[in-house]
Amino acid sequence: MTAETVDPAAWSCPAPLRDSPTVVMGHGGGGALSAELVEHLFLPAFGAAGATELDDCAVFAVGSARLAFSTDSYVVRPLFFPGGSIGELAVNGTVNDLAMSGARPLCLSTAFILEEGTPLTDLARIATAMGEAARAAGVRLATGDTKVVDAGHGHGVFVNTAGIGLIPDGLDIRPARVRPGDAILVSGDVGVHGVAVLSCREGLEFGTTLQSDTAPLHDLVAAMLHPGSPDARADIHALRDPTRGGLAASLNEIARAAGVGVDLVERSIPVPAAVADACGILGLDPLYVANEGKLVAFVAPGDADRVLAAMRRHPNGRGAALIGTVVAEHPGLVVARTAFGATRVVDLPLGEQLPRIC
Amino acid sequence: MTAETVDPAAWSCPAPLRDSPTVVMGHGGGGALSAELVEHLFLPAFGAAGATELDDCAVFAVGSARLAFSTDSYVVRPLFFPGGSIGELAVNGTVNDLAMSGARPLCLSTAFILEEGTPLTDLARIATAMGEAARAAGVRLATGDTKVVDAGHGHGVFVNTAGIGLIPDGLDIRPARVRPGDAILVSGDVGVHGVAVLSCREGLEFGTTLQSDTAPLHDLVAAMLHPGSPDARADIHALRDPTRGGLAASLNEIARAAGVGVDLVERSIPVPAAVADACGILGLDPLYVANEGKLVAFVAPGDADRVLAAMRRHPNGRGAALIGTVVAEHPGLVVARTAFGATRVVDLPLGEQLPRIC
Repeated sequence: MTAETVDPAAWSCPAPLRDSPTVVMGHGGGGALSAELVEHLFLPAFGAAGATELDDCAVFAVGSARLAFSTDSYVVRPLFFPGGSIGELAVNGTVNDLAMSGARPLCLSTAFILEEGTPLTDLARIATAMGEAARAAGVRLATGDTKVVDAGHGHGVFVNTAGIGLIPDGLDIRPARVRPGDAILVSGDVGVHGVAVLSCREGLEFGTTLQSDTAPLHDLVAAMLHPGSPDARADIHALRDPTRGGLAASLNEIARAAGVGVDLVERSIPVPAAVADACGILGLDPLYVANEGKLVAFVAPGDADRVLAAMRRHPNGRGAALIGTVVAEHPGLVVARTAFGATRVVDLPLGEQLPRIC
Repeated sequence: MTAETVDPAAWSCPAPLRDSPTVVMGHGGGGALSAELVEHLFLPAFGAAGATELDDCAVFAVGSARLAFSTDSYVVRPLFFPGGSIGELAVNGTVNDLAMSGARPLCLSTAFILEEGTPLTDLARIATAMGEAARAAGVRLATGDTKVVDAGHGHGVFVNTAGIGLIPDGLDIRPARVRPGDAILVSGDVGVHGVAVLSCREGLEFGTTLQSDTAPLHDLVAAMLHPGSPDARADIHALRDPTRGGLAASLNEIARAAGVGVDLVERSIPVPAAVADACGILGLDPLYVANEGKLVAFVAPGDADRVLAAMRRHPNGRGAALIGTVVAEHPGLVVARTAFGATRVVDLPLGEQLPRIC
């Protein structure tokens, strides 16, 4: 499309974008509204300069090397929560976006938008958390930027990180490679980060001992790729870190991108009692709650057992489980078989149940 | 330093950081307060994971290729101003940070923090401007992210871009290469962007026909590097785009980084009458006003004439001028000879005269 098609004066787009003339919280939720914003506003507006799709991670070649490139802004509230802060999220989140293409993260940029009046001790705590998370992940914080906005026009600290990673030779991990028969593995308990953050939101305090699961996942991915000898690589087709929109959003995105169906066995999905209890009280579905240190993997059936075993041997994959299978039926749909033998469609969420969770 | 040194409870740092327990506007101004924040908060907090200095642009090797990596967040107000919008700034600004290391920009990431309630037509205008600026600069908008914050906790649209560029073989452009005797060239009129944005700030309207000078500069840099034949490369030691803090901040940064003195001939600095008039009315110094489509170059004396001629042949360098010389005297200081033959020290600004200009 040319830029003329998005002349704002004549600008048209399908519902639900057209139903709201303004930005709503759901546009940042990683669900259907986010996807519409990309498809019907950003991609036409960017035109020839844009990617054909704005994936979490771009891949480009430099000489014979293939690099992964990804960015995320972090606006989580509160800034500090059980198990971490916006600082760990900003490092681990972008490390994980790179890792989901199989890349080894090399370096990150860090950009801060600070609200006038924010205590410098808060900023120092956040920056220290970033330094420690980067050291733990083995990435370098290579370049940065700081802007300040007037009080009342920001919210304490917003952090953006962009990251560059190196994709090992011959590795090709992306949604389009997913095939019927693939095993669907999750690396552990779902819904933990979202419930941990929610537990300390103003007005929503409830008793839980849950801590955010924020963690870097590239080392787990490396272990999954080489479950036996270092020479034999397991055939992992696609990887996702189910953050905003939870497991439901990630599975729906993959199902749509690959044109396949996803069959889940609901009782196989590891939901800790504390998450189930909190979700029960608040009327939330754990499949839609954000995770930070978990991944979902689509693996060729012949390799699924040894990849699962490798995950369980790794500290970040101890609770790994087989949760479903890719099928040729109902392409684009995620269907869960419930504990009672019934089936339900697990839709792409419109927005997010819990905004500003990352 | 280790992370322990920045334990927030025991955290200490020199004035002026210590004088303010909170973030002030000047921390985002690109002057002395910004430098203190990097030196005394970010670098100690990042520790071993951080760069030794957080330059505008990091350089790293992938195989035999050298890549430049840079990021900037854009928080300019108003979003639309004479000659452009936050969209053009977000693309050209990061393209230019890459170009100042001599890199050819390859791709950019785009990350938006949107305030709930922002008109989608504004966002479409901004995204269209980004697409057109990227096309004009020949860079790809490769990957992206969108977050939404509650009304009253953002300011319409904040944009972050990070960029990756490829540095030509053997090229080494950085402040440490600046030597006494180097010619200091500026590519055209200074202070234009800042005055153009200021002219439409609420409560500050004044009549001017000035338009922001936002432009990508990598093509001008390429022309400067090859002023004669494509084979012979001119010896350009350092480049800066004097944005926040204006020409004064850029010259001071280079003088300090290289341990040299800068002698300016004030009447040689191209200040258009409209900028001089506006600055006179408002009590501003044009040397401290932000530019967006200008660069300052430090060039080996033997190559200065032909680099200047090449600049003047290029559309983005028509108003180029020799404005001073690098000296061994007064290292770290920028000294201007005034029209009356007196000299004055052009200090690093503390913050910025005009906040949120980019």
